[in-house]
Amino acid sequence: MTTNQTMVKIILDRWEASVKQCDTLVNSLSDEQFQREIAPGKNRGIYLLGHLIAVHDHMLPLLDLGSVNYGELDKAFIESPDKAVSELPSVAELKAMWNKQKEDLKQKFDRLKTEEWFGRHTSVSEEDFAKEPHRNKLNIILTRTTHLTYHTGQLVYLK
Amino acid sequence: MTTNQTMVKIILDRWEASVKQCDTLVNSLSDEQFQREIAPGKNRGIYLLGHLIAVHDHMLPLLDLGSVNYGELDKAFIESPDKAVSELPSVAELKAMWNKQKEDLKQKFDRLKTEEWFGRHTSVSEEDFAKEPHRNKLNIILTRTTHLTYHTGQLVYLK
Repeated sequence: MTTNQTMVKIILDRWEASVKQCDTLVNSLSDEQFQREIAPGKNRGIYLLGHLIAVHDHMLPLLDLGSVNYGELDKAFIESPDKAVSELPSVAELKAMWNKQKEDLKQKFDRLKTEEWFGRHTSVSEEDFAKEPHRNKLNIILTRTTHLTYHTGQLVYLK
Repeated sequence: MTTNQTMVKIILDRWEASVKQCDTLVNSLSDEQFQREIAPGKNRGIYLLGHLIAVHDHMLPLLDLGSVNYGELDKAFIESPDKAVSELPSVAELKAMWNKQKEDLKQKFDRLKTEEWFGRHTSVSEEDFAKEPHRNKLNIILTRTTHLTYHTGQLVYLK
């Protein structure tokens, strides 16, 4: 195994373990639990679930793996804070999206070759990437992993 | 910049950004806020702060950078759940430890050379490491980073 293969494995393993940790939680919480605020006056579970799906969806264009699938979530779950938008998908709908998305992302990530992970992501120009080679696709996985664990730490309090 | 240097930068940048995010929070919360439960019946802020210091302290021997400095925290903050140990350091003492530790870890990490980050951590044998080269020092930083962001997501609810 080359060092590059090792690095891709380390970061993708951490992403997958973090998705699995959140997935176990998502599929163990009831729809009613998701409607609750995590702490008094704070975000509801449903908001964080929609937020994670929307953020993960935007990884696709960033990684040059296609366009978003759930663009209709952006307004309520990225551009707005919780409770600013009253018409939301149901928890059951969001759970179905989460479960479909996790399989879809895994398939797409599995298909990328080691060297492709070290290529630029689409929000950095070729010119800037030449100077800043750390702005690669693997870095997108890493920042989305810490974003995911941050919110998983919050969702766990719904139990 | 070699690919190995890029990978070390990506992971250490993410660790440092995560420490900074938590650090801003730790130093903005009052001692009284740290005594509160994050959500009803859940961990108190003081427990999570002590837990993070103790877990980060154990990175030193794992990375072969020396022995632990705050071993006295293990019983209350790693081996026991919150409220099982009644005699805890004060929040002011824990904050002082946090602030000292963040500088100390940064100095020690900065001194490690790129290739050393790809060497084995001390809880894996040379024999196992030959077969599992992903169990390197950089991987310790990565797993502690996601652990840190998980609990930072919780601490932020103390605000």
